[in-house]
Amino acid sequence: MISQGGCPKTMLSIKDALEALEGKWKLLILFSLAGGPKRFKEISREVGGITDKTLSKELKSLETNQLVKREVFDSFPPKVEYSITAHGTSLEKVLDELHFWGLLHRNKIMGK
Amino acid sequence: MISQGGCPKTMLSIKDALEALEGKWKLLILFSLAGGPKRFKEISREVGGITDKTLSKELKSLETNQLVKREVFDSFPPKVEYSITAHGTSLEKVLDELHFWGLLHRNKIMGK
Repeated sequence: MISQGGCPKTMLSIKDALEALEGKWKLLILFSLAGGPKRFKEISREVGGITDKTLSKELKSLETNQLVKREVFDSFPPKVEYSITAHGTSLEKVLDELHFWGLLHRNKIMGK
Repeated sequence: MISQGGCPKTMLSIKDALEALEGKWKLLILFSLAGGPKRFKEISREVGGITDKTLSKELKSLETNQLVKREVFDSFPPKVEYSITAHGTSLEKVLDELHFWGLLHRNKIMGK
């Protein structure tokens, strides 16, 4: 596929993907939610290094792109939980390949 | 793999990858160079919508991460060309999966 490097139609769909997933947080949030539905603070702890303001903004953007679902449970106090949608789960292979490449890159550049 | 959602070691390697590839431009630049070595203006035209300042910054960061090689040819006027390295080419599967997912996402969210 990379042999088609520069093909304008492929460039467009990679652009679409990167716009939906822009920044370094969205895929990490989705990876965290792939482990099961979580509350705001749980995601924050698992992802690590993200401010509440950024996490809140990223979750909203993920909701807009139908990658994450936000549910409010009618309990006392009300409980809010986030889960990954089927569309979010369709990013599995992207996450897999990033994981493998991240390992490779760490060995190569960071000297392990 | 996504079933290991939240696994701290996997989270770390995805983080490594996303830090090296941060922003929406780097993968597009690499995809352009996958089609063959190019001059600055050719990359700019193929990627589309990127300012010279940003492209210059992104190319430097890609060089630092050994994903892109910059070569100066001793001609009149001197010619500068950028090419993808073997390490850059190792992102092939990431680009493939982003391409496929971008198509899916366009169908789902943008209504084609």
